[in-house]
Amino acid sequence: MKKYCVAVVGAMGAVGREMLKTLEQRGFPVSEIRPLDIEANAGKKVLYEGREATVGVAAKGAFVDVDIALFSAGADASLVLAPIAAAEGAVVVDNSSQWRMDPEVPLVVPEVNPDALDGHKGIIANPNCSTIQMLVALKPIHDAYKIKRIVVATYQAVSGTGAAAIAELAAQAEQFAKGEPMTAKVYPRQILFNALPHIDVFLDNGYTKEEMKMVNETHKILDPAISVSPTAVRIPVFRGHSEAINIETERPMDLADVRRLLAAAPGVKVVDDPAKLAYPTALDADGKDEVFVGRLRLDPTVPNGLNMWVVGDNLRKGAALNAVQIAEVLARKGLEPKAR
Amino acid sequence: MKKYCVAVVGAMGAVGREMLKTLEQRGFPVSEIRPLDIEANAGKKVLYEGREATVGVAAKGAFVDVDIALFSAGADASLVLAPIAAAEGAVVVDNSSQWRMDPEVPLVVPEVNPDALDGHKGIIANPNCSTIQMLVALKPIHDAYKIKRIVVATYQAVSGTGAAAIAELAAQAEQFAKGEPMTAKVYPRQILFNALPHIDVFLDNGYTKEEMKMVNETHKILDPAISVSPTAVRIPVFRGHSEAINIETERPMDLADVRRLLAAAPGVKVVDDPAKLAYPTALDADGKDEVFVGRLRLDPTVPNGLNMWVVGDNLRKGAALNAVQIAEVLARKGLEPKAR
Repeated sequence: MKKYCVAVVGAMGAVGREMLKTLEQRGFPVSEIRPLDIEANAGKKVLYEGREATVGVAAKGAFVDVDIALFSAGADASLVLAPIAAAEGAVVVDNSSQWRMDPEVPLVVPEVNPDALDGHKGIIANPNCSTIQMLVALKPIHDAYKIKRIVVATYQAVSGTGAAAIAELAAQAEQFAKGEPMTAKVYPRQILFNALPHIDVFLDNGYTKEEMKMVNETHKILDPAISVSPTAVRIPVFRGHSEAINIETERPMDLADVRRLLAAAPGVKVVDDPAKLAYPTALDADGKDEVFVGRLRLDPTVPNGLNMWVVGDNLRKGAALNAVQIAEVLARKGLEPKAR
Repeated sequence: MKKYCVAVVGAMGAVGREMLKTLEQRGFPVSEIRPLDIEANAGKKVLYEGREATVGVAAKGAFVDVDIALFSAGADASLVLAPIAAAEGAVVVDNSSQWRMDPEVPLVVPEVNPDALDGHKGIIANPNCSTIQMLVALKPIHDAYKIKRIVVATYQAVSGTGAAAIAELAAQAEQFAKGEPMTAKVYPRQILFNALPHIDVFLDNGYTKEEMKMVNETHKILDPAISVSPTAVRIPVFRGHSEAINIETERPMDLADVRRLLAAAPGVKVVDDPAKLAYPTALDADGKDEVFVGRLRLDPTVPNGLNMWVVGDNLRKGAALNAVQIAEVLARKGLEPKAR
């Protein structure tokens, strides 16, 4: 069996840690694990398959002999480091937004467009977390009924912002319990007991960058003909993004058939039995690989409409798992480990 | 100046307390305040304008001499008690869902359809909290551009469920801070750090009763020709419902004109300056009378589309304030206090 030297860049971050865990849990064939991070974290230890690995500095020279480099180090670091890693021979799977809309870079959700990987040039982009889970759930419906328009409102977890945001939400809960005033540094307002309609920066058209990612990445991954109208909102949840999705399709939908298609779709789990109060929530998705779909109901306000509730673990399928799945597809498609 | 004997039914509940506070804050002309509740709460004291008032039992005979009875005691109690109160001569403003769709009962948002009060038969219904704030924000747009369709996803506070739900969210935060397991009784799942796509009971069509309230009440209050496609979601917020609203209008909208209309509309406050990170949040609306509107942006995916973010205090404008405003309109329209 082929085994690969895998680097994880940003290994000490929320997604980086999850990448290490996911590689291990899925038994990805690793010959050597190479955790990399900023200088301040160099020398720290991470456990991988029961053995300690020492965190190295993500810099020129660190990618020699690396087959696959999973990046979760932010857009700025990726701009500099991904080309270096690719030049040193690694195939980069980058979780940042840096390369996603580059026409030379495949943007891949393995359940949706695995063949976009063919002919990659050393850098592959992992889509935005909100987009990934939405498209995993919509792909089978699009194939059968052709989606024309999506109106989506998100309920996004703080872990999408990173480890500091997780700590801030926890700290605010502790401050609340002690009756202390709450402090906010990561977000411009208190996130505990609040909802902020603001993720990533605001653009000139009034939409946020997060919202436009959902538009542009849907076009690149699934179909440029689909209109997407998004509102992205941060809520006080640690892990698990939820989405209220309204779609209109070209062809009339049969609700029982939609359920069957979703139940049979890879990476999807339907949890939808209102009589038993069965619907997915962020806490149910925490640590899970699947994208959960519930609250399926036809929308009679348009000729062919459907409402649904889609939940996924933003750190797993929304980030680490999708990146590892891309590595798995690369391996299946015949990526050769370097001779050592 | 005319002064009125005002009963508050459910005076010890979350909305009942807010009704007392709102009457006082707005200086409603009260000759006598009569707090009423279930037998278990009888004899308790509430403060009103610096004087103690004793809670009486909400039952037959309790409404003699009452001019206006503000009810927030739930649908079951209202079914029995509202006709009793009306028969004893009070004008009932009921916050429950019991009478809202009764064709004999006006369903009123004072900024939207005050004239529906004319010819009332002693019972007036206060709409659902999510519907009220949505319609206050949409009324000026509908008047100018004629709304055809609304797709709305809500982010609703636990205080909409009542005092026990407020206590449950607080208790879960304290349990989290102590590292204890969290207990859920009011909601079927943990609400802290979660989002539940489930408010009120599920109906046969797959929508919840809360969602269908937004459909049916919009038709009754604003315009039966408007299509409404709702998803109602509970999030871990104490006070303040937020709504991601997407609308399509008959006529093309001018964004600057929409802003002007909203800025001039009664009960609306526009908070929308992305460059300064100005947008409304639930915490900003807490304790405020206005419905806050932000994130205004055209939706290019339909000919005449708009996305907006609407936030209101569900206990005030969504319940207590709207009821008191109805009482104010009744007083303005010439309701005569009883001779005493």
